[in-house]
Amino acid sequence: MSMIVNRRDVDFYLDEMFDLGSLLASDRYSEHDRESVTAILDLCQNMAEEEFLPCAAEHDENEPIFKDGQAITPDSLKACLKTFVEAGLPTATFDHDLGGMQLPVMVANFMQGIFQAANAPATGYVFLTSSNAHMLQACGSEALRERYLPPLVEGRWFGTMCLSEPHAGSSLSDIRCVAEPVGDGSYKLTGTKMWISGGEQDISENIVHMVLARTPDAPPGVKGISLFLVPKIRVEEDGSLGDPNNIALAGLNHKMGQRGTTNTLLNFGEGGDCLGYLVGEENEGLKNMFHMMNEARIGVGMVATMSGLGGYLYSLDYARNRPQGRHPGDKDPNSPMLPIIEHADIRRLLMEQKVAVEGSIALLTYCSQLVDQQLISDDPQASQRLTLLLELLTPIAKSWPSEYTLEANKHAIQILGGYGYTREYPVERLYRDNRLNPIHEGSHGIHGLDLLGRKVNLAGGVTLAIFEEEMQPALETAAGSESLSAMGEALNAIWQLAKQTVETVNQEADTVTRLSSATPFLDAFGHIVIAWLWLRQALIAQEALQKGAQADTDFYEGKIAACQFFYRFHLPQAAEKLRYVASRDRSVLDTQASWFTGF
Amino acid sequence: MSMIVNRRDVDFYLDEMFDLGSLLASDRYSEHDRESVTAILDLCQNMAEEEFLPCAAEHDENEPIFKDGQAITPDSLKACLKTFVEAGLPTATFDHDLGGMQLPVMVANFMQGIFQAANAPATGYVFLTSSNAHMLQACGSEALRERYLPPLVEGRWFGTMCLSEPHAGSSLSDIRCVAEPVGDGSYKLTGTKMWISGGEQDISENIVHMVLARTPDAPPGVKGISLFLVPKIRVEEDGSLGDPNNIALAGLNHKMGQRGTTNTLLNFGEGGDCLGYLVGEENEGLKNMFHMMNEARIGVGMVATMSGLGGYLYSLDYARNRPQGRHPGDKDPNSPMLPIIEHADIRRLLMEQKVAVEGSIALLTYCSQLVDQQLISDDPQASQRLTLLLELLTPIAKSWPSEYTLEANKHAIQILGGYGYTREYPVERLYRDNRLNPIHEGSHGIHGLDLLGRKVNLAGGVTLAIFEEEMQPALETAAGSESLSAMGEALNAIWQLAKQTVETVNQEADTVTRLSSATPFLDAFGHIVIAWLWLRQALIAQEALQKGAQADTDFYEGKIAACQFFYRFHLPQAAEKLRYVASRDRSVLDTQASWFTGF
Repeated sequence: MSMIVNRRDVDFYLDEMFDLGSLLASDRYSEHDRESVTAILDLCQNMAEEEFLPCAAEHDENEPIFKDGQAITPDSLKACLKTFVEAGLPTATFDHDLGGMQLPVMVANFMQGIFQAANAPATGYVFLTSSNAHMLQACGSEALRERYLPPLVEGRWFGTMCLSEPHAGSSLSDIRCVAEPVGDGSYKLTGTKMWISGGEQDISENIVHMVLARTPDAPPGVKGISLFLVPKIRVEEDGSLGDPNNIALAGLNHKMGQRGTTNTLLNFGEGGDCLGYLVGEENEGLKNMFHMMNEARIGVGMVATMSGLGGYLYSLDYARNRPQGRHPGDKDPNSPMLPIIEHADIRRLLMEQKVAVEGSIALLTYCSQLVDQQLISDDPQASQRLTLLLELLTPIAKSWPSEYTLEANKHAIQILGGYGYTREYPVERLYRDNRLNPIHEGSHGIHGLDLLGRKVNLAGGVTLAIFEEEMQPALETAAGSESLSAMGEALNAIWQLAKQTVETVNQEADTVTRLSSATPFLDAFGHIVIAWLWLRQALIAQEALQKGAQADTDFYEGKIAACQFFYRFHLPQAAEKLRYVASRDRSVLDTQASWFTGF
Repeated sequence: MSMIVNRRDVDFYLDEMFDLGSLLASDRYSEHDRESVTAILDLCQNMAEEEFLPCAAEHDENEPIFKDGQAITPDSLKACLKTFVEAGLPTATFDHDLGGMQLPVMVANFMQGIFQAANAPATGYVFLTSSNAHMLQACGSEALRERYLPPLVEGRWFGTMCLSEPHAGSSLSDIRCVAEPVGDGSYKLTGTKMWISGGEQDISENIVHMVLARTPDAPPGVKGISLFLVPKIRVEEDGSLGDPNNIALAGLNHKMGQRGTTNTLLNFGEGGDCLGYLVGEENEGLKNMFHMMNEARIGVGMVATMSGLGGYLYSLDYARNRPQGRHPGDKDPNSPMLPIIEHADIRRLLMEQKVAVEGSIALLTYCSQLVDQQLISDDPQASQRLTLLLELLTPIAKSWPSEYTLEANKHAIQILGGYGYTREYPVERLYRDNRLNPIHEGSHGIHGLDLLGRKVNLAGGVTLAIFEEEMQPALETAAGSESLSAMGEALNAIWQLAKQTVETVNQEADTVTRLSSATPFLDAFGHIVIAWLWLRQALIAQEALQKGAQADTDFYEGKIAACQFFYRFHLPQAAEKLRYVASRDRSVLDTQASWFTGF
């Protein structure tokens, strides 16, 4: 069995749950059909299993090093990415007129996921480049696009996003990096950027940084932030490489995981000229950067999920093959030992992983479906509805997988016992890799504020109504099902509780108080979204079983059992979290800094 | 502020909550008084801060290496332990007649904790030695005790426990190591032992292994396991070191954390004689080993808690000093940034750590109080009651801290953001260290089986009644308190639910089914114990505040706020877990191995 993908499950999402067929029937995706999608996923799986997976441990053990101001990456990392680029895979989501494959985002998502499950840090470079190029495509001038897009789309150059500074991570309004107009349309950049993934490396011919900075007369705060394209090496009019910009690698961060991706501290223009070019309008940098950030946020959810999947599949295979112990009550030491999957607690640890990982895959595939529907829509009203739905779901899509597939990785280690705690097995690495995801692209707490402080009240609160519409079909179908109606009722009940909770919270006048339990709300709301997606999976499975899906009986039974477990074990706890949020408890908020220790 | 201990909090447990005074008034501890206890804690804190803490990161980065069949540890690790041994600290818990300090276990617990918070892997060697020597003292023959105890007590030799084998970790009944009688009272051992902490090292003069093995005619299963003392270097009658035993270091395990402690694969008697000596009677090895294991299990709870404390104090200090962002609603970018502790979500992350860490400290101090009460008791009935109480609490004391202070370490990383994810800060290391604790000394799932399958029904189910008696005083006092009565009622309600859950579960005839949700039960039951201990803390704090504890107001307010948060946020979720256990849901148990993936 593959350790990075369950193709039966991928087919389930593509064909049975999210209707890839109707996307492929659209004009936009008319050059593809179901067979070509299968072929490209085959190609990705082979490449990921043969090239990316075998050296994942090596990239962790021999992380990139800082030498003479350069970042030196392992040769096998360069080789992986060379294969990836030469196969044309970076072009997956770009339009045909840019030389792209113009694949449905839903398909590209799984292509990406296969590589991420194999070796997430290695893939960081190319998927960041993809988001970078999408933003340039959306916001850049024609001149910039002509010069920079083709090599980014092809993957010859890699891209970064440079937001944080050493003193300002979450607080972007406080960034200090300065961009001074030269007079010829270009700007000289000075300042320091921190936590820049892929900020320096020896893999691609050039690096295209997307940098947030202030022009000299910019207003303070986020309203004075502009976005600049800053190449590592300047690009001549004919597209050839010229002189290097003055961008000094001040150091590499030594991370707990995700070690194959360089993470850098960069000084711009400290010892010479560093020229950049405005992307979009001055002072609209943050808005433009959100083109990249929203994609990156859903991307973080995806990479988290794939670290979770890698651990799930590995520990499942281990549990099926490792003999250990007997059933409690069987005191006969001469009876053979059981494969540990026969032990109830191991099965629980696997089930916890299944509900987290497959729930997250469903969520992210759903998001990709919404993006695809936008791309093929010519109805502005429908498109606006999809935008609002994506706005509501983005904090969930980033945060829920980050939190719960990390938990899944913890369970994978547990299944392997002492072995799982050693670096000879991949599960501890996947856990370390995954710990990054609740931190970057907006910390977990920031997404709570985004959800409760903004998204649930967006456009007069219509986002919740739109999501409720989305849930209706499943609720209605469940109502007519003997075995699943209890779950439909439970989902409806917690949904009503969530809406009441929002109303209660909205009544609070003081902003700090109103948002003080935003993180538990994010958590519980995420459970509702995941519960809905599990109900949909169970409904599809039940229908298939009723139709007599012989060969797939086990697959569908597993979907129904996972749905039941999630509803019976997790959903009641999520309801308690909502009740807590609604109670407006002040025990945390009123705790003064000195109370924690008494001094 | 110290990064490894809050002495105000230690005093709270010793003096206000667990009555060290009455222990010091006993004959057994009459050589000590409160001042000498303070002095020894001062000494420990100084030594831990000056010697152990500064090299903790180095022991992680430069872990012990395997060279020419030897384990080479870092020099600074050897230096730490030399200082510790020379100060006489290994003797803390041993009786005066063995040259020990004969300190209350409660005090020794905090001494140990201070070192563990500073550098848990370095301390692993000495605290394992202590458990080893306690077992020898309890079960060994006079001849063995005379020859081996003094150097173990002094810390000149270190001890190990050798239970697991590569094919048998949790399943001890399947161990294969053989001990063949030589005829002179000694045995020749052959076999392989896995996961042996400190199994080889270059720190102590000798190593005393406690090895589980089978004699040739032993019955199968756990009834045929005997316990042997196997020295690395044989010891002559006069106590001098003779020839080495044939014990080959086959390799070191490369762990995710806890790297300063060597973890070894050992081959006994593979290429020559390996002589061992029976401890206790033949075939009673497991019972005797439990002397060591029960102490080690509570010890695991302690080391977990201290990794949690280290992360809590570090992230608290960081949160008080790191400026970042403004209150939501404050849109003025010219207003100064706030220390992040002012943000509600950071405060929540700190509060989560506080409830887990200080709840765990209270639990482990309570256990040490019970041990001390046993040691000073001359009433066999009272002593038996204490034994039963400790039996009930041991799986909780091991598991709850292991699970929830790991979660606390996760939160500590989150507070530091990107910095927390780098190896330049200690929080990621503490998280890696702590991930071991739910695995060793009986995995989390094993303790669930122990609690629900054995401990709650021990001696006709009297254990729950005894614990209920223990809770009574706090419940009664809370009933008379205006502000805390709601918590007393909540505790009583969830306690009734727990008892009903046990009754419901006990009605199930099939053992596998009965114990299928043992882990969620362990989790929820742990919450009840912790909730009770938090209520006790809050009651003490409230009384102190009513008496007008001016200087300590902040300290006591923090205790009350933490208690409230635990009751309002966590306890209702624990109740849902109990309801789940009582529902006897079969969704996990009925899931077949093939259902997870569909094949």
